[in-house]
Amino acid sequence: MNREEALNLVEPHLKKTRFEHTKRVTDTAVDLAKLYNEDVGKVELAAVFHDYAKYRDLEEMRRWIISESLPKDLLTFHHELWHGPVGAILVKKEIGINDQMILNAIKYHTTGKKDMTKLEKIVYLADYIEPGRDFPGVDKVREQAEVDLDMGCFMATKNTIQFLLSKNQPIYPDTFHAYNDLLMTIKNKWREEMNG
Amino acid sequence: MNREEALNLVEPHLKKTRFEHTKRVTDTAVDLAKLYNEDVGKVELAAVFHDYAKYRDLEEMRRWIISESLPKDLLTFHHELWHGPVGAILVKKEIGINDQMILNAIKYHTTGKKDMTKLEKIVYLADYIEPGRDFPGVDKVREQAEVDLDMGCFMATKNTIQFLLSKNQPIYPDTFHAYNDLLMTIKNKWREEMNG
Repeated sequence: MNREEALNLVEPHLKKTRFEHTKRVTDTAVDLAKLYNEDVGKVELAAVFHDYAKYRDLEEMRRWIISESLPKDLLTFHHELWHGPVGAILVKKEIGINDQMILNAIKYHTTGKKDMTKLEKIVYLADYIEPGRDFPGVDKVREQAEVDLDMGCFMATKNTIQFLLSKNQPIYPDTFHAYNDLLMTIKNKWREEMNG
Repeated sequence: MNREEALNLVEPHLKKTRFEHTKRVTDTAVDLAKLYNEDVGKVELAAVFHDYAKYRDLEEMRRWIISESLPKDLLTFHHELWHGPVGAILVKKEIGINDQMILNAIKYHTTGKKDMTKLEKIVYLADYIEPGRDFPGVDKVREQAEVDLDMGCFMATKNTIQFLLSKNQPIYPDTFHAYNDLLMTIKNKWREEMNG
């Protein structure tokens, strides 16, 4: 499936502004894939379909979370967190993508997680820094994204947690684990550089 | 064991400034116990002994964490987090306190956790707000501590996480879980009040 075919499949599932976001995420993700030597075809598919379930009915998503044995604690967190894991399931069932690497990049694109793969990191970060985003501090994340993929992901995760704290919102455990894990990765890298 | 006997037992294990801190935490915790109808005797013992292991040798603490099957992930986090769980073990073995409620208040006083008991919350919060503390925002936490124990603990936890983020420090999972749990407790309370 090429990019155009994929975009044609996803378009009917998204509002117009969300479709435009999806195209920008895809462009950004492909740039990151080239920069960090990841498979462009996989990155492209994961990015095109990352928001596939964004506008699904909440009750339908709730049923998928239960019937597919997704983590039950999702249901106690905001439904904004559901479209990633549910999207991964629906992209497999309805679009026929079976590559688990791609499906996981869709699954974890909102929360992040511990031990993200390069593909997961690229989609997670592209979703955060695509040119339409205007979060406080996003320009610094964009700069770091071109220097170090882990640092870019770390800054995006830290900003997200800080934003949620400032709004007195709950923080999904995978996001905390992503923060701690990326921090340890970066510190280990610095340590190696200082000792090298 | 009364307060004076307890303080005499803990004093040799602490630096002078830490012993003064311990007495202030005990006073603060006793005030909170009276305000929120908790057992003053238990609160007093937990507060007096909360920092019992603060100056133990790091290698000794590491051995206790392993031999007593404390969570292994403690070892990958800063040793500042070790003296609570190790303290609970040593206060049992060396002082002979067997009350698990008291021991748990010692164990979790630094990190907090999900589903804290009233006793645990009081020691956790007293350690944060005792009059010698000068964290940014501590006065607001002190005010709330007199109004609502959960709100006081929530604000202390949120401040702690924000501080650690600002310093690019890892955050122990129990602290995240405390934040989410206290937030849900507060939100449920507000919802009930609005519906009441």
